[in-house]
Amino acid sequence: MNLIYEGKGKKVFTDPASPDCRIVEFKNDLTAFNAQKKGSFPDKGEVSCGISHLIFQFLESKGVQTHWIEKINATQVRVQALKMFPLEVVVRNRLAGSLAKKMGREEGEILKQPCVEFYYKSDSLGDPFLSSEQVLALGLLDSATVSQIQGAALKINSLLKQYFQRAHLDLVDFKIEFGENAHKEILLGDDISPDSCRLWDEKTQERMDKDRFRKDLGGVDKAYREVLKRLESL
Amino acid sequence: MNLIYEGKGKKVFTDPASPDCRIVEFKNDLTAFNAQKKGSFPDKGEVSCGISHLIFQFLESKGVQTHWIEKINATQVRVQALKMFPLEVVVRNRLAGSLAKKMGREEGEILKQPCVEFYYKSDSLGDPFLSSEQVLALGLLDSATVSQIQGAALKINSLLKQYFQRAHLDLVDFKIEFGENAHKEILLGDDISPDSCRLWDEKTQERMDKDRFRKDLGGVDKAYREVLKRLESL
Repeated sequence: MNLIYEGKGKKVFTDPASPDCRIVEFKNDLTAFNAQKKGSFPDKGEVSCGISHLIFQFLESKGVQTHWIEKINATQVRVQALKMFPLEVVVRNRLAGSLAKKMGREEGEILKQPCVEFYYKSDSLGDPFLSSEQVLALGLLDSATVSQIQGAALKINSLLKQYFQRAHLDLVDFKIEFGENAHKEILLGDDISPDSCRLWDEKTQERMDKDRFRKDLGGVDKAYREVLKRLESL
Repeated sequence: MNLIYEGKGKKVFTDPASPDCRIVEFKNDLTAFNAQKKGSFPDKGEVSCGISHLIFQFLESKGVQTHWIEKINATQVRVQALKMFPLEVVVRNRLAGSLAKKMGREEGEILKQPCVEFYYKSDSLGDPFLSSEQVLALGLLDSATVSQIQGAALKINSLLKQYFQRAHLDLVDFKIEFGENAHKEILLGDDISPDSCRLWDEKTQERMDKDRFRKDLGGVDKAYREVLKRLESL
């Protein structure tokens, strides 16, 4: 196993068993604001790996094509190797985070319709927000790929909203990433955990995600474990 | 004539002749960066009014529905009263300005296709950039209106590109605004001048627009007069 890439929350290794696969290892690190704020907790990797595994299993069971193959141990999974697109894809159901900030409004407002957004992956540029029209005009993706990603993102949103609802969690927004495998199929890649979702408790609106860390609300470890517990009990 | 509104570059008055019309007066002021930078030149109002009048006459002659009625004198025009949408609409043909900056690239690159952008009109929020999906999700406009505006903006771009080309000017990008008249028709409103267009000389790529003022290149008055001269000679 050779390390190919180390990101903020995980490491990606070659898979000795197949050149078309990768081993992803979830780290105990927690970062925010383009990694300017750093933290960790002892079972973060395990909990995030557990949550992401349940979510990807669920999405696969509903016909979503993803890179997920199997969980190897508490913090490692085997996935298909993907050539990632240079965009983060965000889907919002309620106003929160950067969109609330730029509109000068309180978090929480339910949007008229779910909203798919693109962010150009560049730490040095601060991951700038791009409209789909800008993605096309800049030649970052072609029009068929943009449409396919938008459609997949909305389908994933609709599935995950129901899934989290069963766990009494409100899916406010989330970030996903897509890429192409060796057969040029577009698959959902990366992972999905409270690092990349805003999840609010259905009743108390308590934040059950990385906003606890971003906003110094405390108890980020407990919140992540609670999310895992609720999903495991479904 | 009662003053209804005074903006950065013009004043809008009631029209004693009709409650459905307005008199727009072009001022000699020049502002940039959300009015943090201020300037003026003596015949600015006259030159901008002249350029805008030629452009709106041209667009009307090509079937674009606008609020323009007639020029009254050197700095004043009569227009239909519109209820303006809270969005600035930008169309880009080449990479420049804020899009070049956020992508960390040089100005000038020709885009793969013209790109329509929306900016939420709010001085206090700094006119934030919104995707069409955000405009819909926030309920700022309905989907039919967004489509109509996008279509009109692309048609106006295609007409103006050819128009400026005849004057040996390259239309890099421009900002327009739309609104609804008393009959709920969506019309092109506001004005179009080197205040709101990037115009580069076809041969020398010399800036013939407000970027001369923004970037302290000098000769902004001469450039505006040259644009008027070239359009008058068509």
